[in-house]
Amino acid sequence: MLEAYSIAPVDPGLEHRLRDRLAQKTMPPGALGAVGELAVALGIAQGTETPTGGPAEAIVFAADHGLVAEGVSAWPQDVTALMVEVLAGGGAAAGVLACAAGASLSVVDVGVAGSYRTDLPHLIDRRVRGGTRNAAVEDALQREEVTAAVDAGAGVAVEALARGARVLMPGEMGIGNTATAALLTHAVAGIPLDLLAGPGAGLDAAGVRAKHAVLVRTAARRPGRMVPGDAFAAFGGLEIAAMAGAMIAGGAGRAAVLVDGFIATAAALLALEARPALRPHLIFAHRSAEPGHDAMLRHLGVEPLLDLGLRLGEGTGGLLALPIVKAAAAVLTEMTTFEEAGIATP
Amino acid sequence: MLEAYSIAPVDPGLEHRLRDRLAQKTMPPGALGAVGELAVALGIAQGTETPTGGPAEAIVFAADHGLVAEGVSAWPQDVTALMVEVLAGGGAAAGVLACAAGASLSVVDVGVAGSYRTDLPHLIDRRVRGGTRNAAVEDALQREEVTAAVDAGAGVAVEALARGARVLMPGEMGIGNTATAALLTHAVAGIPLDLLAGPGAGLDAAGVRAKHAVLVRTAARRPGRMVPGDAFAAFGGLEIAAMAGAMIAGGAGRAAVLVDGFIATAAALLALEARPALRPHLIFAHRSAEPGHDAMLRHLGVEPLLDLGLRLGEGTGGLLALPIVKAAAAVLTEMTTFEEAGIATP
Repeated sequence: MLEAYSIAPVDPGLEHRLRDRLAQKTMPPGALGAVGELAVALGIAQGTETPTGGPAEAIVFAADHGLVAEGVSAWPQDVTALMVEVLAGGGAAAGVLACAAGASLSVVDVGVAGSYRTDLPHLIDRRVRGGTRNAAVEDALQREEVTAAVDAGAGVAVEALARGARVLMPGEMGIGNTATAALLTHAVAGIPLDLLAGPGAGLDAAGVRAKHAVLVRTAARRPGRMVPGDAFAAFGGLEIAAMAGAMIAGGAGRAAVLVDGFIATAAALLALEARPALRPHLIFAHRSAEPGHDAMLRHLGVEPLLDLGLRLGEGTGGLLALPIVKAAAAVLTEMTTFEEAGIATP
Repeated sequence: MLEAYSIAPVDPGLEHRLRDRLAQKTMPPGALGAVGELAVALGIAQGTETPTGGPAEAIVFAADHGLVAEGVSAWPQDVTALMVEVLAGGGAAAGVLACAAGASLSVVDVGVAGSYRTDLPHLIDRRVRGGTRNAAVEDALQREEVTAAVDAGAGVAVEALARGARVLMPGEMGIGNTATAALLTHAVAGIPLDLLAGPGAGLDAAGVRAKHAVLVRTAARRPGRMVPGDAFAAFGGLEIAAMAGAMIAGGAGRAAVLVDGFIATAAALLALEARPALRPHLIFAHRSAEPGHDAMLRHLGVEPLLDLGLRLGEGTGGLLALPIVKAAAAVLTEMTTFEEAGIATP
């Protein structure tokens, strides 16, 4: 499942060549801070001294969660289908930010429970089943369903790469999916649920307490650490499994993958657990306002690019970081060198 | 001088209308965090419910500093002229980032000491004098020279507005100008020089100590708090005075002004001291790696958008923030509303 798609090791001399190239540009050493580091990381991700910020494609995976029956979200389940319509029409935040950043947008139904208009420009139908089963009472997915979701995500990513994409931004929409992401992260990484239970798309303090209780009860049904495949089967997340598949396929295709917030980072964490070679292909876009995101980032030892208090999902963090990725690439490929400018460095 | 250019007060009902407009968009309340706040701030800056991230123009002001004779920079003075050539040819970081962000670029010589090729596409000659006098031994500028620099900056900004610019990004290039910016900020805001003396474009620890001693000695020549005009005369900064002028003219023209790092924030601080009505037109782009920038931002009570460890100048922080400003505008003007999507809010 997550073991498919071969990710080639990084050329061991590439980082040095990238840093050398950066050091020749007309600016004091390190003057672009994290943007210079990003230029190097992007070159490593794409396996080249001349990385690029585009073509870039946001791929928003949508699915529903049976766990919503336990009351883990401020919003009813049918909002997933309603938002798929808005997303696939280009009018949601992801579409507007994709347009602003010059990125393509695909919206992939991998498991929405409800129905919606299907004559929408960005829509791709890869529905595995209409939402997961309720993980509080039974396994959310059969193993074949997990595999199908991972393959659906990987397949859409491969299609984007075939269209020329060099940067992928997996995103998600799914009412209840912060609950599922918390369960997956707890099961695979052992991060305590106390750190991972948060307001999601708008729970108040009482709502967070109730969600935490549901998470504890659901996790207790399948205690102990799990491998990613078992965790997806136990707790679901068709869109999260698809994101993990898209990330792995992106890495296999030598693309840079911009990781969005809480749910995307859960997908990245599970994908990395299965395929550590994916690591150099991942660029972490931002620190989410969802409190548990910080625990995930610390677990991964990652300092993300942006810290804007986002908690929207849909790949919006990746889309907001994309112009900085494009800028980093341009610094490495387009800036004048000290030698060209006739400036002696001190 | 800084008192020219009338800045109209903000429509008191505009913020409420902007927040109401934002609340109708298909996302949970506050889900875009600082980007939502930026959308509101941009609307207020431009005096409209439908703000825009463009057209945008970076205006890089270049000048030299007599204080460099005291050894306050890691780089020799002639690098200013050499970098003006690179900047005006579009090959420096500012040009590459402007291109990446879809912004225009102007490079304005308001006081470079050296000479350079002048057949360069982005160059505007408004040289007031060839560098300031050495502020450690005499006043850096005559009052008429300060006025000429402020007017030059304001004039270039007015020309950009006439070309249609709605977002201005004043930047700077000038060997030694972190020293001058520190002196200006100390004199006008009373921030201790201990907090403001930093490595600039690359001093080591011994260099920073020597620079600090020069700053203390120079400040002692003109002790006590000063108004901005007196501070510019005492310590100079033709490019810093020009930036202050450009910011005020930008505010008067209902543009949004993206404030870059340490030196641009010093210009903003002096401009605000002279013209508090400028405040709603300023958007602070980033927190610089130059340590004193944090003290300036705290003095102003500002939380900037980005924190990328930049310490380059040239308006690069504003240029890196510009796509986020464009995204914020697009959220307010292009996103679908809950009503349009037929979604009931919880």
